Amino acid sequence: MTLSFAVTARDGAARTGVMRTARGDVQTPCFMPVGTRGAVRHLSSADLEDLGAQVVLANTYHLMLKPGVDVIAHQGGLHRFQDWSGHLLTDSGGFQIFSLESGGNVKVDDDGVTFRSTYDGSSHRLTPESAVTIQTAFGSDIQMVLDVCAPLPSPEAVLRQALERTTHWAARARSAFVAQGRPELSQFGIVQGGTDIDLRVESAERTVAIGFDGYAVGGLSVGESRTEMLRTLTAVLPALPEDQPRYLMGLGDPLGIVEAVALGVDLFDCVLPTRFARHGTILSGAGRYNLKRAENASADAPLDATCGCPVCARWSRSYLRHLLVVDEPTAPRLLTIHNLWWTMQLVQELRAAIATGTLGAVRSRIEAAYG
Amino acid sequence: MTLSFAVTARDGAARTGVMRTARGDVQTPCFMPVGTRGAVRHLSSADLEDLGAQVVLANTYHLMLKPGVDVIAHQGGLHRFQDWSGHLLTDSGGFQIFSLESGGNVKVDDDGVTFRSTYDGSSHRLTPESAVTIQTAFGSDIQMVLDVCAPLPSPEAVLRQALERTTHWAARARSAFVAQGRPELSQFGIVQGGTDIDLRVESAERTVAIGFDGYAVGGLSVGESRTEMLRTLTAVLPALPEDQPRYLMGLGDPLGIVEAVALGVDLFDCVLPTRFARHGTILSGAGRYNLKRAENASADAPLDATCGCPVCARWSRSYLRHLLVVDEPTAPRLLTIHNLWWTMQLVQELRAAIATGTLGAVRSRIEAAYG
Repeated sequence: MTLSFAVTARDGAARTGVMRTARGDVQTPCFMPVGTRGAVRHLSSADLEDLGAQVVLANTYHLMLKPGVDVIAHQGGLHRFQDWSGHLLTDSGGFQIFSLESGGNVKVDDDGVTFRSTYDGSSHRLTPESAVTIQTAFGSDIQMVLDVCAPLPSPEAVLRQALERTTHWAARARSAFVAQGRPELSQFGIVQGGTDIDLRVESAERTVAIGFDGYAVGGLSVGESRTEMLRTLTAVLPALPEDQPRYLMGLGDPLGIVEAVALGVDLFDCVLPTRFARHGTILSGAGRYNLKRAENASADAPLDATCGCPVCARWSRSYLRHLLVVDEPTAPRLLTIHNLWWTMQLVQELRAAIATGTLGAVRSRIEAAYG
Repeated sequence: MTLSFAVTARDGAARTGVMRTARGDVQTPCFMPVGTRGAVRHLSSADLEDLGAQVVLANTYHLMLKPGVDVIAHQGGLHRFQDWSGHLLTDSGGFQIFSLESGGNVKVDDDGVTFRSTYDGSSHRLTPESAVTIQTAFGSDIQMVLDVCAPLPSPEAVLRQALERTTHWAARARSAFVAQGRPELSQFGIVQGGTDIDLRVESAERTVAIGFDGYAVGGLSVGESRTEMLRTLTAVLPALPEDQPRYLMGLGDPLGIVEAVALGVDLFDCVLPTRFARHGTILSGAGRYNLKRAENASADAPLDATCGCPVCARWSRSYLRHLLVVDEPTAPRLLTIHNLWWTMQLVQELRAAIATGTLGAVRSRIEAAYG
């Protein structure tokens, strides 16, 4: 395996370091913007370069349906398709499929999952092996195994079955991945088990026993309380190797990031900053607020006076609120840039704070604003 | 008046030159992108700078309703509100009001026009004088007089009444403008008269007699045939001063621009390139085409192989079509940048062709692609 991970400093359980792949270095902790269908909504890869994004997520489920694997492979892979030279991480599609399960359009068996396309109702199948083949065709730098993500709360039997399938599928996915002989690509396993500590630890141990380039904690931030999420995370992280990257899937609110970093998480992804932006919810050092509120109609101030983003450098709350209220698409774009910039700036501060042993101070500040 | 206009070269009736205002120089012919509500849809002023836009349009009708004159004045005017240091031209609101007249929400009298807001139904009034006051509060570099724009076709009596009101209002608007003592700002008159040559020439002569910084031809490109439009334009342009800028309102298709430039028009505005972009219609040297067509699904080529825009430099038709089909807002944004860039590149070529006496060659090429 070519992926390496070197911790350069610690502050309690938190760590900062460098994840190195064939593509280059990623400074951790790292927040990864979500470009589900091959673009972060309202942004291009040029914008992501300006933002200093290191890793961008894409989604296997959506991209295998549209434009389809063949189109992306014909274009030379997802990096060339998007013209993005940074890291790409692809989710396997499992989470999306199980999120859409309630509609009765998904059938899971021990071998894989059959589902209907959200676009045209056509039938498709993913197996642990085909999820590897597809993500390799995309040229993803970091691919995720196909997992079974149970909703929370779920009965123990459901969590157990999800764990068993996830674990068996992980072994098959790893074999398929290794057999490809593509050492420039990496593959992460996913730990499941809901908020059941015993199941989580078992899942972690069995996944680590298979041996991956890194480990994700899936199935959290799906409806459980913050307390339950942190309790689970606290229990499961020590069961993951110290010298490999740890990725908490789907969490990206400021306080959540700080708390998870404090527990030793290295990688994050979340649609929260971008989704918030589209609805006019602004992240700032003073907490989050709704830009649409009347008090911002004539406000000359930038979105956040302490923010170094190109939006705060140029435009007032008054102007941005106006564009949002009259439904100009320039508004969600500029607010997306701000919220992503702000989040990545926060994570950069966390890296610096860990290096200087001052994580507690940043944590207190974010708790005061977002607690 | 501070606005000056110097023709630097001619090719037949076409001319290229420099329009100079207190804000700076504008090379003509010039295409002006439309930023109706204070932004070109999907773009920011940073994008307009990258595009090399010289003049951007904004709309009095929309901006006086939202965010309102007070908000913009409080922010120090429209330039500071948008953070745009290039030229701003504001339409008076007349065209929008009369476009919405069919709903019975508009009452015109000899003194002005009363209308209901498209946003909340509230009642508002514009007079020739208040249109000046508002546009001055916006700090518009070039403001337009309040005119009456009759639909086409209209009976001669309707065209005559529109002409009379437009002419009387123009005189009042000019008085109000001059009385302000704001020599750094400019004001254009508007010629009406439908496709009736006698009315058009009369309107031009009476408007010129009032004396403005430049002259617009309004009420064309509103449903009449291309032949009628060109016949009218051919008749009216010689009635406008040679040494002042001429602005054809609302025209912006490639062939229309070339034909109007050949007749001696200097300034254009139109939503066509940006509206086309949002629907996936691409302007190119080979004519326009629909990006959504299946043949583009795997096309590795850029939108236009001869285009120098930043979109053609990075992304394939395949990628851009994908984003468009799955409704990613990145698509209309990138297509907007291409279509505007392409249009402004065309107008730049027209300036160069006039200077070298080769307008005929550019015209033949555009006729072959768009005729």
